[in-house]
Amino acid sequence: MLQLRKSLYRILEISAGKRRGISFIFNLVLISIITLNAIAIVLHTVPEYNQRFARLFYDFELFSVIFFTIEYILRLWVCVENDKYRHWFWGRVRYMVSGSALIDFLAIFPFYFSLFATDLAIVRILRLFRIFRLFRISRYSHAFRLIQSVVAEKKEELVLSTILVIFMLIIVSSVMYYVEHPAQPDKFSSIPATMWWGVSAMTTVGYGDIHPITPLGKLLGGIAAIMGIGLFALPTGILVSGFNEHIRVQKKPKITYCPHCGKEISASPN
Amino acid sequence: MLQLRKSLYRILEISAGKRRGISFIFNLVLISIITLNAIAIVLHTVPEYNQRFARLFYDFELFSVIFFTIEYILRLWVCVENDKYRHWFWGRVRYMVSGSALIDFLAIFPFYFSLFATDLAIVRILRLFRIFRLFRISRYSHAFRLIQSVVAEKKEELVLSTILVIFMLIIVSSVMYYVEHPAQPDKFSSIPATMWWGVSAMTTVGYGDIHPITPLGKLLGGIAAIMGIGLFALPTGILVSGFNEHIRVQKKPKITYCPHCGKEISASPN
Amino acid sequence: MLQLRKSLYRILEISAGKRRGISFIFNLVLISIITLNAIAIVLHTVPEYNQRFARLFYDFELFSVIFFTIEYILRLWVCVENDKYRHWFWGRVRYMVSGSALIDFLAIFPFYFSLFATDLAIVRILRLFRIFRLFRISRYSHAFRLIQSVVAEKKEELVLSTILVIFMLIIVSSVMYYVEHPAQPDKFSSIPATMWWGVSAMTTVGYGDIHPITPLGKLLGGIAAIMGIGLFALPTGILVSGFNEHIRVQKKPKITYCPHCGKEISASPN
Amino acid sequence: MLQLRKSLYRILEISAGKRRGISFIFNLVLISIITLNAIAIVLHTVPEYNQRFARLFYDFELFSVIFFTIEYILRLWVCVENDKYRHWFWGRVRYMVSGSALIDFLAIFPFYFSLFATDLAIVRILRLFRIFRLFRISRYSHAFRLIQSVVAEKKEELVLSTILVIFMLIIVSSVMYYVEHPAQPDKFSSIPATMWWGVSAMTTVGYGDIHPITPLGKLLGGIAAIMGIGLFALPTGILVSGFNEHIRVQKKPKITYCPHCGKEISASPN
Repeated sequence: MLQLRKSLYRILEISAGKRRGISFIFNLVLISIITLNAIAIVLHTVPEYNQRFARLFYDFELFSVIFFTIEYILRLWVCVENDKYRHWFWGRVRYMVSGSALIDFLAIFPFYFSLFATDLAIVRILRLFRIFRLFRISRYSHAFRLIQSVVAEKKEELVLSTILVIFMLIIVSSVMYYVEHPAQPDKFSSIPATMWWGVSAMTTVGYGDIHPITPLGKLLGGIAAIMGIGLFALPTGILVSGFNEHIRVQKKPKITYCPHCGKEISASPN
Repeated sequence: MLQLRKSLYRILEISAGKRRGISFIFNLVLISIITLNAIAIVLHTVPEYNQRFARLFYDFELFSVIFFTIEYILRLWVCVENDKYRHWFWGRVRYMVSGSALIDFLAIFPFYFSLFATDLAIVRILRLFRIFRLFRISRYSHAFRLIQSVVAEKKEELVLSTILVIFMLIIVSSVMYYVEHPAQPDKFSSIPATMWWGVSAMTTVGYGDIHPITPLGKLLGGIAAIMGIGLFALPTGILVSGFNEHIRVQKKPKITYCPHCGKEISASPN
Repeated sequence: MLQLRKSLYRILEISAGKRRGISFIFNLVLISIITLNAIAIVLHTVPEYNQRFARLFYDFELFSVIFFTIEYILRLWVCVENDKYRHWFWGRVRYMVSGSALIDFLAIFPFYFSLFATDLAIVRILRLFRIFRLFRISRYSHAFRLIQSVVAEKKEELVLSTILVIFMLIIVSSVMYYVEHPAQPDKFSSIPATMWWGVSAMTTVGYGDIHPITPLGKLLGGIAAIMGIGLFALPTGILVSGFNEHIRVQKKPKITYCPHCGKEISASPN
Repeated sequence: MLQLRKSLYRILEISAGKRRGISFIFNLVLISIITLNAIAIVLHTVPEYNQRFARLFYDFELFSVIFFTIEYILRLWVCVENDKYRHWFWGRVRYMVSGSALIDFLAIFPFYFSLFATDLAIVRILRLFRIFRLFRISRYSHAFRLIQSVVAEKKEELVLSTILVIFMLIIVSSVMYYVEHPAQPDKFSSIPATMWWGVSAMTTVGYGDIHPITPLGKLLGGIAAIMGIGLFALPTGILVSGFNEHIRVQKKPKITYCPHCGKEISASPN
C-alpha cells in the first residue's frame, strides 16, 4: 500500500519523476484534457454548437469532473510523501489550502455545487469558474516559472507602476472632466465615465466611442496619449532589468585564481 | 514643549521613525484619508451619488480639510527639528516653499478660498485642485522613489524624446495637412486640427474620428504609425538603461579574501 | 563540367563568394526580381492596374517563373558541392527538403500547378502562394540572421509569452462574456465573438466596432487594457535580454599582457 | 577683418565657445526665432488667425528670412575657420553641401523661389518646406546627439526591422485580401487597400474604418495584432542594447594592477 502511494506520488508529481514513462504520459493526458476543457468552455457559448453538440458537451464535462475528482483525491492521498506535508492529517490540510490544490479544487467544486443550486444566475457564474482549469497547465513549463519568478521579484515595482497608472488616470480624467463636461455633458457625464475615456487613451486602445472635441480637451488628450507612451516604457524597463539580473544569477560561478598564492578560488557568484 | 515638538516630528516624518508605533499608524491613517478623498472627488461628479450622499460628501470634505489643516500647522511648527530648516523664521519660510509643503498647502487652500469666492466657475476649478491631495501619497513608497530617481537621472533624455515626438508630430501633421486638406477640408481644416490626427496616429491610439482617405494620405498615415513604433522604443530604451545603471550602482564593491592565503583580493568591478 | 559546377556554386551561394564580381551582381539581380514580384503581386489586385497592365503582369510572371525555374534546377545541380549534400542522389534529395529549397520550390510550383487546375478557387489560393518569393530575400542580410538567432534562442520564452497571451485572452473574454452578454447579446454573442473584442483590447488596437457599455464591463475592459501593457513588456524584456546576451557572446575573451613584466593576464570575463 | 571672422566663428558655432557670453545669447535668440517660426507655420493654417494676423504673419516671415539669410551668409563667410573647410573656395563649397548647411539653405530658399513662382500649387508646397527650419534646433542638444549616435550605430538593425515590418505587412495583407475580399469587396478591394488595414492593425492604431467581419478574417486579424506586439519589441530590444553599449563605452577606463609584478595597468576599455 505504501509502495503504491510512493509510485503514485512519482507519477502525479512531474518534478519527482523527470520525463520518464508513466509520469510523462499521465501529464500529457492531463494537459490534453485541460486544453480540451478550455475549448469546450469557449465553444459551449456559441448557440449553434451548443444545440448540435449539447450531449457531447455534457458527457465531456461529466468525464472531466470525474477524472479531476479522482485525481484530486489521489493527490490528497499521496501528498504526505512530500516532506512539506508529512503529517497524515495536518499535512493534508496544509496541502488543501496550498495554491495549486486550491486551483484543483476550484476546477471541480462548481460542478458539485451546481447540482444543488436552484438559482440559475449562480449556476451561470459557477460555470465560469471552470475556466480556472486553465491555470493548472501553468505548472508544467520551465520557462513559465522563469517569467513567474521575474515577475515575483519585481512585484513591488510592478504594483507601483500600476498604482502610478491609476494615479495618472484619476488626475487626467478629473481634469478632462472639468474641461470636456460642458461641451459633451452626455459622454463626459462624470469622472468615472471620463475614466473610461482615460484608460482607453492612456493605454492607446482608443475605441473611438468617446473622445474630446474641444481644442483644450484635444490638447489634454494628446498629452495623455504621449504620457501613455511612458506608461508602456516603465513596466518594460522594470521587467527587462529583472530578466537581466536573473540571467546573470543563473550563470555558473566563475573560477579565478588568487594572485598571491595562485590557488583556485571559487569566486562568489555575482 | 521642545520635547513634544521632537516627538511630533518623529511621528510626522516617517523617515525619522521607521515603521514604529505611532508614526506608522499615523501615516496609515493619512494614506487612508487621502485615498478616501480621491474616491470622494471621483464619485462626487456622478449625479445620483451626489444627490444621495450630498451631506456625507460635504461632511467628509469638512473633516478632511480640518484634519489636513491641523496637520499642516503641526508640520510647520515641528519642521525646525530638521537641520535643513533650523532657523525659527526663515527655516519655516523655506519649508513652506519646499515641494512637499506646497502640495500640502494646495490640498487645503482651495477650500478656504472657495468660502470667499462668489464666481462659480472659479469654485469649480478650485474643486479640481483637491485632486492634488493624491500626490501626497507618493512620498510613502520606497519603490516610488526608485522610479522617481531613474526618471530624474534620465530627465534630459526623456525631455528630449518628448521634444522629438513634438517635432515629428509637427512635421508629419504639416505634410498631412497639405496632402489631405483638399480631400477633407472639414476634418483636416488646419495644421492644429491635423495634429489631433497626428497625435492619435503616432501614439497608436487611433480614435477613428479623423483619418486620411486619399492614397497618398494613407501611405503617409502608415509611415507615421510605423514611426510611432520607434517613439515607443526610444523612452523604453532610455528608462531600461537607467534602471540597469541604478541596479549596478546599488551593488556594493565586493572585497573578497583568498581562502588559501587570506589576503585581500580587490575583485575587478563588474 | 565539374569546374563549371564549382564556379556556378560560388556564384549562386553568396556565402561562398563574398561580395565579389558575378556572385554579387547575380544576387542583386535576384533580389530585384523578387522585389518586383512582390510589387506585381500587390498591384495585380488593383482592378484598374490589372486591366491596363494585364499583358505586362502576365509576361513578367512568365519571365519570373522561367528565371526561378532555371535557378532552382541549377541550384539542385550544384548543391552537391556543399559538403552537407555531397552524395549525387541522396544529397540532392536532402537539399530539396531543406528549408530554403522548399521556399524556392513553393515560389514556382503554384504556376505549374495552375496550368492543370480547373477549379478557379484553387487557382486563386495558388496565386497567393507566390508571396512566398518574398521570404527568399531574408537569406541575404547579416542583421536579419542576428535577429533570427536571437529569436531562435529565446524561442521557448516567446512561445510561452504567446501561450500566456492566449490564456489571458480566454480568461478575460470568458469573464467579459458573462458580464456583457445580457446587455449586448448581439455583439458579445459568444465567447469566441468576445475574443475578437479581447484581442483588440489587449493588443491595444481598439477597432471600436465592439466595446463594453455596462459599468462592470468597462471596468473589466480597463483592467484588460492595463494588463495589455504588461503583455507588451514581456516579449520586449525577453528580446532585450536575448540581444544583450548575444552581444556579450560575440565579444572575444580578451587576453592582455602586462606592459611592465610582459606576462599574460587572463582578464576576468565581464 | 580676420580677427572679426574668428570672433564671429566663435559666436556662431556653439561647440567652439561653450556657453559663454555672446555665443550663448545668440543661440538662445536663434532657437527662439525657430520655435516662433514653427508656431507661426502651424497657426498660419487656422483660417481665423490667418485673417486676423495676416500682417503679423507676413512681417514675421519677412523678418525671419532676412535674419536667416544674413546668418547663412555669415556662416558661409566664417566657415573657413573650421579646419574641415579651410580652403577659401572649395572649403565653402563643401560646407554648402554639408547636411546642416543644406537644412539652413532649405529654410530660406522657398521664400526667394516663391517670389518668382507663378504657380500657386508650387508656392503651397514651398511654404511647407519652411518646416525644415525646425530641424535646425536639433543641433543644439547634447542628449540629441547621444540618441542620434545610438540610432546611427544600430542603423542596419533598425532598417532591417522596418523591412521586416513591411514584409509581414505585405504577407498579412495578401492573405487577408484573399480571405476578406469576398465578404467586403468594397473595403478590402485590393491588396494595397488591405495594407491600410494591415498597417493600422499591426501598429495597433486601429482606426476602425476597416476591419474584418468573417470569422477567419477575425482570427487572422487577431494573429496580426499579436504579431504586432513583437514588432514593438524588436526595435525596442535593438535600441536598448544600443544604449547599453554606449553607456559602457562612456565609462572611464578602469585601473587594474598586474598580479605578477604589481604595477599599474591602464586596462583596455571594455
